[in-house]
Amino acid sequence: MVVDSERFLAIDWGTTNRRAYLLTGDGEVLETCRDDRGVLAVAKDEWPAEIALLRARMGDLPVFAAGMIGSTRGWCNAPYVDCPVDPALLAQHLVWPEAGRTAIVPGVANRDAGAPDVMRGEEVQLLGAVIAGLVPRDGLLCQPGTHSKWAWMNDGRIASFRTAMTGEMFALLRTHSLLADYLDEDVVPGDEFRAGVALAGQHRLLTTLFGERAGGVLGCHSPAAISARVSGLLIGSDVNEQEFAQGTTVHILADPMLGALYGDAIRAAGGVPVIVDSHRAFAAGMASIWRACHE
Amino acid sequence: MVVDSERFLAIDWGTTNRRAYLLTGDGEVLETCRDDRGVLAVAKDEWPAEIALLRARMGDLPVFAAGMIGSTRGWCNAPYVDCPVDPALLAQHLVWPEAGRTAIVPGVANRDAGAPDVMRGEEVQLLGAVIAGLVPRDGLLCQPGTHSKWAWMNDGRIASFRTAMTGEMFALLRTHSLLADYLDEDVVPGDEFRAGVALAGQHRLLTTLFGERAGGVLGCHSPAAISARVSGLLIGSDVNEQEFAQGTTVHILADPMLGALYGDAIRAAGGVPVIVDSHRAFAAGMASIWRACHE
Repeated sequence: MVVDSERFLAIDWGTTNRRAYLLTGDGEVLETCRDDRGVLAVAKDEWPAEIALLRARMGDLPVFAAGMIGSTRGWCNAPYVDCPVDPALLAQHLVWPEAGRTAIVPGVANRDAGAPDVMRGEEVQLLGAVIAGLVPRDGLLCQPGTHSKWAWMNDGRIASFRTAMTGEMFALLRTHSLLADYLDEDVVPGDEFRAGVALAGQHRLLTTLFGERAGGVLGCHSPAAISARVSGLLIGSDVNEQEFAQGTTVHILADPMLGALYGDAIRAAGGVPVIVDSHRAFAAGMASIWRACHE
Repeated sequence: MVVDSERFLAIDWGTTNRRAYLLTGDGEVLETCRDDRGVLAVAKDEWPAEIALLRARMGDLPVFAAGMIGSTRGWCNAPYVDCPVDPALLAQHLVWPEAGRTAIVPGVANRDAGAPDVMRGEEVQLLGAVIAGLVPRDGLLCQPGTHSKWAWMNDGRIASFRTAMTGEMFALLRTHSLLADYLDEDVVPGDEFRAGVALAGQHRLLTTLFGERAGGVLGCHSPAAISARVSGLLIGSDVNEQEFAQGTTVHILADPMLGALYGDAIRAAGGVPVIVDSHRAFAAGMASIWRACHE
């Protein structure tokens, strides 16, 4: 575990995309690049070459990677660590496919038999948001996306979390369902999205989804309206399922557009949304894991 | 609208399958056949030839068809009639692509702005179940399927109805989602299915669906168990969304296997399920429309 520089490369390596950061040990971002070389784009035996290319581009430095690169479809499986989780625990369970040179951060599991759950990559953002002072050490954090994560932080640790398949569900409906013809339009915040959020309050997701199609067939709503309404219905359902108390502050780690949509739905549920810079959180999280390896 | 025989052909013409019945005007079933010549298998200009083939096989008789044959993807569009609906209203709004020879039964719409809904084909079974004495003139009927229908009957008419995209959702998850690897197995009634129905009582569909995947990843459940649990979760959610009162009798128009699954979920929600012969109901419904044309 010898590292010989004060700089390193941190990679958020997802299924379809990756984002690489050139960082200092303090979490300062010197350079970033994003591309579509996600896990699915890299063949099983091409990982050393892939990492070498990245070093050639960004610097011949140690690499710390998180996300699906540590899954069975990635470079090598980094077994989940269990909640509660802090950066030191992640650092203890790094997997090193290239000794001292390239480390993979493990994912996190919630093995509660009543609500099993898993994450890979989001744990770095969650812990980093606390370390960077972007969120308090206790509270509720939300990471919208294909699989939206809701994490309850306790004294700066991930105490427990839940995942909803909100983004994947919208993609399934948009691509493969009988609703597909009505879901082509881009979704933006506004009255139609909020109408969908209000529909979520009826707690009839399977019925309301068909009702949106029927509303299209009968000419009640335009396709642009239905796209926004169905998005609001799904995001509103996701938010309602988390059952936070009225007045709860929810810190959202997301890009501005998706953050704005979740913010509207969280406000409708009586919460107080605060949008946080997820890239800064990731950099701070990776730097803290890096530092934990050097103490 | 001249018809010159006491026998006729009644067809339940769906998207992917059809079922044809040789009936008397009293609704007696003399012969049936089922095949995969659904609406999607018939080109737009082949409908006369398709009907001629059917007559060559089953008898040169008048044809009454219901279902997706009356949609924009079928032979010709039969505009929806509005609730409340009885057989006489359907008979008044038949569309005749071959005058006096071939009639298409219109679908039914619920234009309530808060819950728009549509059906095509199910209306014949619903009304026929009353006419055949299989269900009372007032009560709640359920037709499970790709799009499950729940109809509230009032004095023998369809007063209102709701549709849930339960079967389509299971097919989307099984075919295209990240859960697909865990949903290969056939679903049968039993403890795992009932565990899924119980999960539906948490009212967290998007979260619980991801939890089933996480339970698979962490080895909490076998794929066979997950198939049954997810089916129970979806069917249980569908049943819960209808919010019928404790002790309500629900008549189910379905084949025995799907009827048994819905029966378990209805019992769990405090209802009393009764399974009804949907083919007999269809025959009785078509015969009543036929008779309404001859009075």
